[in-house]
Amino acid sequence: MFAPSLGIDETCTLFKIEMRSEITMNQHYQNLVQKLEEITHLNGVMSTLGWDQEVMMPAGASDARAKQIATLAGVIHERMTDPALGECLHELKEKDFAALGEMERCNIREALYSYELETKVSKRLVQELAELGSRGHSVWVTARQENKFADFAPVLKRFLQLKTEWAQCVSPDLEPYDANIDLFERGTTMNVITPIFERLKQELIPLIAAIQSHPVQPDTSFLQGRFALDKQEVLARKISQDMGFNIEQGRIDVSVHPFCGGSHPTDVRITTRYKDSNFVESLYSVIHETGHALYEQGRPHELGDLPATESLTMGIHESQSLFWERMIAQSKPFCAHYFETIRAAFPENLQSATVDSFYRAINTCKPDFIRVEADEVTYPLHVILRYEIEKGLFDGSMNVDDLPEIWNELMQKYLGIKPPTDTLGVLQDSHWSGGAFGYFPSYTLGAMYACQFYNTLLREQPGTGQNIATGNFVPIKNWLNEKIHRQGKLYTPQQLVERVTGEPLNPDYFVEYLKNKYSEIYRLA
Amino acid sequence: MFAPSLGIDETCTLFKIEMRSEITMNQHYQNLVQKLEEITHLNGVMSTLGWDQEVMMPAGASDARAKQIATLAGVIHERMTDPALGECLHELKEKDFAALGEMERCNIREALYSYELETKVSKRLVQELAELGSRGHSVWVTARQENKFADFAPVLKRFLQLKTEWAQCVSPDLEPYDANIDLFERGTTMNVITPIFERLKQELIPLIAAIQSHPVQPDTSFLQGRFALDKQEVLARKISQDMGFNIEQGRIDVSVHPFCGGSHPTDVRITTRYKDSNFVESLYSVIHETGHALYEQGRPHELGDLPATESLTMGIHESQSLFWERMIAQSKPFCAHYFETIRAAFPENLQSATVDSFYRAINTCKPDFIRVEADEVTYPLHVILRYEIEKGLFDGSMNVDDLPEIWNELMQKYLGIKPPTDTLGVLQDSHWSGGAFGYFPSYTLGAMYACQFYNTLLREQPGTGQNIATGNFVPIKNWLNEKIHRQGKLYTPQQLVERVTGEPLNPDYFVEYLKNKYSEIYRLA
Repeated sequence: MFAPSLGIDETCTLFKIEMRSEITMNQHYQNLVQKLEEITHLNGVMSTLGWDQEVMMPAGASDARAKQIATLAGVIHERMTDPALGECLHELKEKDFAALGEMERCNIREALYSYELETKVSKRLVQELAELGSRGHSVWVTARQENKFADFAPVLKRFLQLKTEWAQCVSPDLEPYDANIDLFERGTTMNVITPIFERLKQELIPLIAAIQSHPVQPDTSFLQGRFALDKQEVLARKISQDMGFNIEQGRIDVSVHPFCGGSHPTDVRITTRYKDSNFVESLYSVIHETGHALYEQGRPHELGDLPATESLTMGIHESQSLFWERMIAQSKPFCAHYFETIRAAFPENLQSATVDSFYRAINTCKPDFIRVEADEVTYPLHVILRYEIEKGLFDGSMNVDDLPEIWNELMQKYLGIKPPTDTLGVLQDSHWSGGAFGYFPSYTLGAMYACQFYNTLLREQPGTGQNIATGNFVPIKNWLNEKIHRQGKLYTPQQLVERVTGEPLNPDYFVEYLKNKYSEIYRLA
Repeated sequence: MFAPSLGIDETCTLFKIEMRSEITMNQHYQNLVQKLEEITHLNGVMSTLGWDQEVMMPAGASDARAKQIATLAGVIHERMTDPALGECLHELKEKDFAALGEMERCNIREALYSYELETKVSKRLVQELAELGSRGHSVWVTARQENKFADFAPVLKRFLQLKTEWAQCVSPDLEPYDANIDLFERGTTMNVITPIFERLKQELIPLIAAIQSHPVQPDTSFLQGRFALDKQEVLARKISQDMGFNIEQGRIDVSVHPFCGGSHPTDVRITTRYKDSNFVESLYSVIHETGHALYEQGRPHELGDLPATESLTMGIHESQSLFWERMIAQSKPFCAHYFETIRAAFPENLQSATVDSFYRAINTCKPDFIRVEADEVTYPLHVILRYEIEKGLFDGSMNVDDLPEIWNELMQKYLGIKPPTDTLGVLQDSHWSGGAFGYFPSYTLGAMYACQFYNTLLREQPGTGQNIATGNFVPIKNWLNEKIHRQGKLYTPQQLVERVTGEPLNPDYFVEYLKNKYSEIYRLA
């Protein structure tokens, strides 16, 4: 798909008469490549600092690290807003853009997008957002601990003002909330999301109600107990590497919150946490992060440390982690393949379990208050609730002060439960404390992409179930590598989905998948 | 000793008539502080990358990391050679320098020194040195593996030319070799070193010969065997923290070569390696690195991330590691205090050992080929040999091509042994492959400083032996903190030694220490 950028040199050789201008063009482009690669390298350094802070840094170093990060962020900002970079980009964009190859054009387009994002906003607004983000986080931590939404409300109000102002600077043609969504899922707007989310509500609310009221509930008792941490770690590492995680170009460590980080496609670092009371959580979080990691390791970095080789959007990234976590690892053939290995790790706990009881136990559906602990059926409703609130805040139909009440009403309406405190309700997520509005939809967009991709894979490789059942993940990984990872930023998410699956995002696959799977697990009519 | 820099503001208040110029001065100085702190933060980031590379980074990431490091090095170089920094420094240096406090003057002096070091050398020479250093290292690795000095000789010849040219740029008033030494041990020249090293040769060569020919040799058999790595690690961590290593602001990890790194005095990271065949090596390397770490953790960083708060020189740093390794941990009271703890960790191996036999076993003296494995008596001769060769190369009295022969002759003359190969001889150290001439003397300067400092401590705190014997290291650490660590770069090494001990560097303490200690261990007449 990608090809090394030889086009220009060949043109020079073939059409000598045009050589002078071609060389100039090439020099401009080489100049751009150098600037962009330096920015990528410095971002890689920043990622290493972030990873180190979460995984390695001694607690006493936090002040010094904050200063190091602030200084490096300043250096990166200088480079990204360097007027010489802007000139170079405009020069390339305005002259002979069409003569360049697909990848060169993509690098210019993406770099220009970032440049404008960084330069369109006034320094005053950038600083105010950064300060509010830093202060907002600690206000939120305390408010959440003390269950005091009123303390957090002023931060939220101010963020709404600033993020509206920000949206008008960067994307004056978009609705402010769409401009915020655009940051996480480029090109996806409320026009697309709202009808899809309405459809999900329509299908999932009755499905969840049916599951809840049904007398047959899976036995999960054998997942309780004590599970030795060293066994959990061996198991997680084995499965991650079976999936194709390249440990020669990555690491697996422990941190408070699992994440996928690292400095480069050859240095991809995932983390998890091990609890001795719950091995499923850590195992599936390693599988989830491995999905992210395979995307990063699969990027076409041999084409340079350039924007075109980067991962596409939050939603597409999440589609890769959820593809492995849900489509593959929560499937029956996966359980069949690993059940004896897992039982051998915890023989006493899983003594009387079977492949089937294990499959049903890890696929229970139960409404609960906390999004990050939700199962795949209830998760979308957590997201939709947040989406509707963000939409309402930006269009003025909701007020910040009413959020606790709105939140609880929607929880009751969608999941049939009401959080006893705001800590377990409107205050649970960190996103808003940093001003990250528009992020939440990408979780459910990712889930739907994953399902649609999986459906295409099944069509193109009908032996996939058998491959999973025999632990042969190579064809699956190769397919994702080729179809998604190696495409970098060449297409928009909408184009990519259509190229891979032959149609735009279609929630039917997700709805059908959930309905079929859970009807069978819960023996629904 | 240090005081927060309030002097200027007070002056402003007291002498209103001078206020305008004082404020300007203060603004200049604040401007400088900001620039210097940013450089310090970026250097801290660079150190984190270095640590990560040795301890954490997956092997496959080395190319990407090299590019990240090169880009960051470029950013730091830009900042260090920023003409605005130079103007600011000259402004401060030329106007009212005397009106500033001791610490401010030190920051300006040190920053100017670094600025001139970076800007006096042409870009061409900087690049050629960097390229030769990078290429030289891999040439050396292969030459050493294949025992082919002739392959390495051209690199060494070119480095000599370049480092002579470099010396003429940065310190035209110094002999070229002195300019190279100055980089590692500021202010110390051949005039000082040569007579001291002559004295050491005169004393140590006969001492080593006497030890070698003496019939009484310590029993070291109980140090051979298998020592569980987990026990070694627990022991090393305990002793490091007993010494005062603050693990809340530091880490202990494993790497191929032990080192002390980290990004800040609140983030000091030491490493070691554990071999199951030898616990003494890893334990004493942790103690050695802890000595370095206590220096870093003891720096007066509350005064800002500024040059005046940095460690002084290589020699003074080495004095701190050797102070703890040799003066404290190779002493009889230290062995007495820890012997039962050590024996409890390895009961089978140390069954029949005693405090005395343990003390004698860890203090054996035996000439061998490799510097890094040498004991404290033979080590100085390894250093002197290298010093004499470097001196001879720079003054033209020696030729690179003759080095293998010269090396082996001097080994025979000083230690009575001849390396069977150049791999075990002239090719063993990496220093010259990177052009680091003038580094070696600091090892033995450090050893002599350590001994002289210890002698002063004994005079000022006569209960030190008793403190060691009871594991009370607090008064020792506090003394080093106050006398050395918190002095930062306020004085030259020569001034510091004189301030702490009341006299200039005096090799007598070192010579007497070795003669007394080893006469007793080897029962010499």
